[in-house]
Amino acid sequence: MTDPVRIGLLGRGTVGGAFLDLVGERADAVEAATGRRPEIAGVLRRSEGDFEEILAGSEIVVELIGGTDPAREHVLRALREGRHVVSANKQLIAQHGDELFEAARESGVQFRFEPSVAGVIPVIRVIQESLAATEISKVFGIVNGTTNYILTEMAKTGASYSEALARAQELGYAEADPADDVGGADAAAKMAILARLAFHTPVVLEEVAFEGIEDVQPDDLAYAKEFGLSLKLLGVAERHGEAISVRVFPCFLYRGHPLAPVEGPFNAVMVEAPSITEITMSGPGAGGVETASAVLGDVVSIVSGSAPVHAVRERLGMLRDLDSAFYLHLEVADRPGVLAQIAAVLGDNEVSVKSVVQWGLGDDARLVMVMHESAEKRFYAALDEIAKLEFLRSPPRAIRVIEEEFV
Amino acid sequence: MTDPVRIGLLGRGTVGGAFLDLVGERADAVEAATGRRPEIAGVLRRSEGDFEEILAGSEIVVELIGGTDPAREHVLRALREGRHVVSANKQLIAQHGDELFEAARESGVQFRFEPSVAGVIPVIRVIQESLAATEISKVFGIVNGTTNYILTEMAKTGASYSEALARAQELGYAEADPADDVGGADAAAKMAILARLAFHTPVVLEEVAFEGIEDVQPDDLAYAKEFGLSLKLLGVAERHGEAISVRVFPCFLYRGHPLAPVEGPFNAVMVEAPSITEITMSGPGAGGVETASAVLGDVVSIVSGSAPVHAVRERLGMLRDLDSAFYLHLEVADRPGVLAQIAAVLGDNEVSVKSVVQWGLGDDARLVMVMHESAEKRFYAALDEIAKLEFLRSPPRAIRVIEEEFV
Repeated sequence: MTDPVRIGLLGRGTVGGAFLDLVGERADAVEAATGRRPEIAGVLRRSEGDFEEILAGSEIVVELIGGTDPAREHVLRALREGRHVVSANKQLIAQHGDELFEAARESGVQFRFEPSVAGVIPVIRVIQESLAATEISKVFGIVNGTTNYILTEMAKTGASYSEALARAQELGYAEADPADDVGGADAAAKMAILARLAFHTPVVLEEVAFEGIEDVQPDDLAYAKEFGLSLKLLGVAERHGEAISVRVFPCFLYRGHPLAPVEGPFNAVMVEAPSITEITMSGPGAGGVETASAVLGDVVSIVSGSAPVHAVRERLGMLRDLDSAFYLHLEVADRPGVLAQIAAVLGDNEVSVKSVVQWGLGDDARLVMVMHESAEKRFYAALDEIAKLEFLRSPPRAIRVIEEEFV
Repeated sequence: MTDPVRIGLLGRGTVGGAFLDLVGERADAVEAATGRRPEIAGVLRRSEGDFEEILAGSEIVVELIGGTDPAREHVLRALREGRHVVSANKQLIAQHGDELFEAARESGVQFRFEPSVAGVIPVIRVIQESLAATEISKVFGIVNGTTNYILTEMAKTGASYSEALARAQELGYAEADPADDVGGADAAAKMAILARLAFHTPVVLEEVAFEGIEDVQPDDLAYAKEFGLSLKLLGVAERHGEAISVRVFPCFLYRGHPLAPVEGPFNAVMVEAPSITEITMSGPGAGGVETASAVLGDVVSIVSGSAPVHAVRERLGMLRDLDSAFYLHLEVADRPGVLAQIAAVLGDNEVSVKSVVQWGLGDDARLVMVMHESAEKRFYAALDEIAKLEFLRSPPRAIRVIEEEFV
């Protein structure tokens, strides 16, 4: 009879509680898979439990505290004391990844963090293990369930952003203070982690440009539907030769795009590489039991054997000058020559128009356009000129579009 | 400087050639990920190379011969001689899994076979590692790219089955002898493997019931489109208490189902469990470089460390008496009372109708119906009675429908 695997749990919120339940329910299955039975060595809560005591009695430390302080200190100490660590803490890894990976490497222990990104979707395992020798060119997707729920609700019901947010809060899909989710910071931390792993280069959170969904208007969603477009908050990490870009922004997708049908609080991630074409993975974005399940998967992997620790292989620059297609909404005076003037500005800036529709008449007239891909800085230069045209009745609204059509 | 990893390659067809190229191209990446450089110790072709010599010089044997003979003999011998093995051979594992896993366990070596199922989609790793401690309730999906290409082509162009098959052969998506693919046997072997891993129970190919797509009519696809349905060849492995079912059959899906947008030669697999809700994964179904990439992923995992070998945990019965919803196409005489009689037969058998549309008039009249879920044997009993009704102008056609609506 082998020894049980003693697990020290730091933090006992929703995920921590679900993890304790799951360890109880699935102890037999863990033993069948690994030969060893899991046992909870101790639980650290805000006002209860002693970290040093839990550390001393544990072989694996599971960190579910969130935030960087005191999580960073505890995780570093656990790694340096030779404990394997599983963490669900995206902010911790996005901000302090280098020192954590270094500590794990020095101690020869495993540091796993599948639950930190995209809920139950095993994107970190797939990138680090299945695709360990693959030259990944792009990782992108919907990595925040709160914003995807809000955008789905707006599109389906015509609700305003604040109405949809309130509904998300009622259902537990958004927190009382939703700023990190709706502003894009949460997705940015996850994309920093995915970019680091995919491209084997250090990526810190501060390098990730992000926009949120607070300014999305319900009528943009309605007009875009006429073009077959649906709006998602996308995280995109892409390699361009010796540089990468990592960004988060709201983006329309055409029907038929693998991410277009991903609705509600679901997440989805696509990984592209020449030798695999693409892999798309989707599933629930978070939820206590789903995240706890990802934690348990990492615990089982640790008990089953060793795994590679992320190592920097090269240092790539961060590219910011990119090409995009855009959706453009303009409230204009309803009179001859308006479209011609706008088209001229776009043409002068080498931005080419794919579709244009005029809605409404007189004081309600508006032009809704979709562009082909062009250098973003050219499009923005055109946008600045357009904003100054005297027949515009309100500031222009622009949103990126993924132009790619699938199968 | 550590020793290189010496790889013996059995078989040098399309995948074998792509694997040799990939090992050359990605040797640096493999070394970065694992600390050891891959090296080809020898290649066995039909008319060239000596198996014993290659075995003696290899640490890992990659089996890409296909079929069960001599693949079974070579793989067994390699495992018993203490070599790790990677195989892309679904027939071998579906038919001789038990003895291969046993040999690997006895020798304490790894036996990996990610490339045997669903191309680049890492479904085996996800089931065996991420979900090792998860109680999986269902694994299902599109695991044959040839048939998915044919069905997509028929739906998009109105082509007949044989026209679409010819086109698939031209493009290299179907072999000269397509029988195993279009008849469902290929998908059945893959589902036998997935069911075994998901439910930890021995599943042999002979137990998997399968139907193919040879009898699918273009007008079924056209009518079904009116209901928002698209046709896929689905593999479904499901646990029902202490029994399981494993089947392959053509099936309509509603728009919005995660598998509905999977078109052309792509594969997709969904895994369901209470603690994860569901994970959906999709990607190219096969192709030389994609399969070679999955082989290399397994090689890297072997070099990186140990992994659990599949073990039987219990022996579950095979359930065959299941509930399904059906699409039903009937060419009928155009006269009063026809629908009433059909509805009466269905009602007597406790099959309830969800939608019904009549197309055509006179000699071209036909009823297209979609049922709610009911016991299959009740539906088939009703179908037998309907087939005997004197106003039927041709035999009824029935196809399963997944009734579930998503988000």
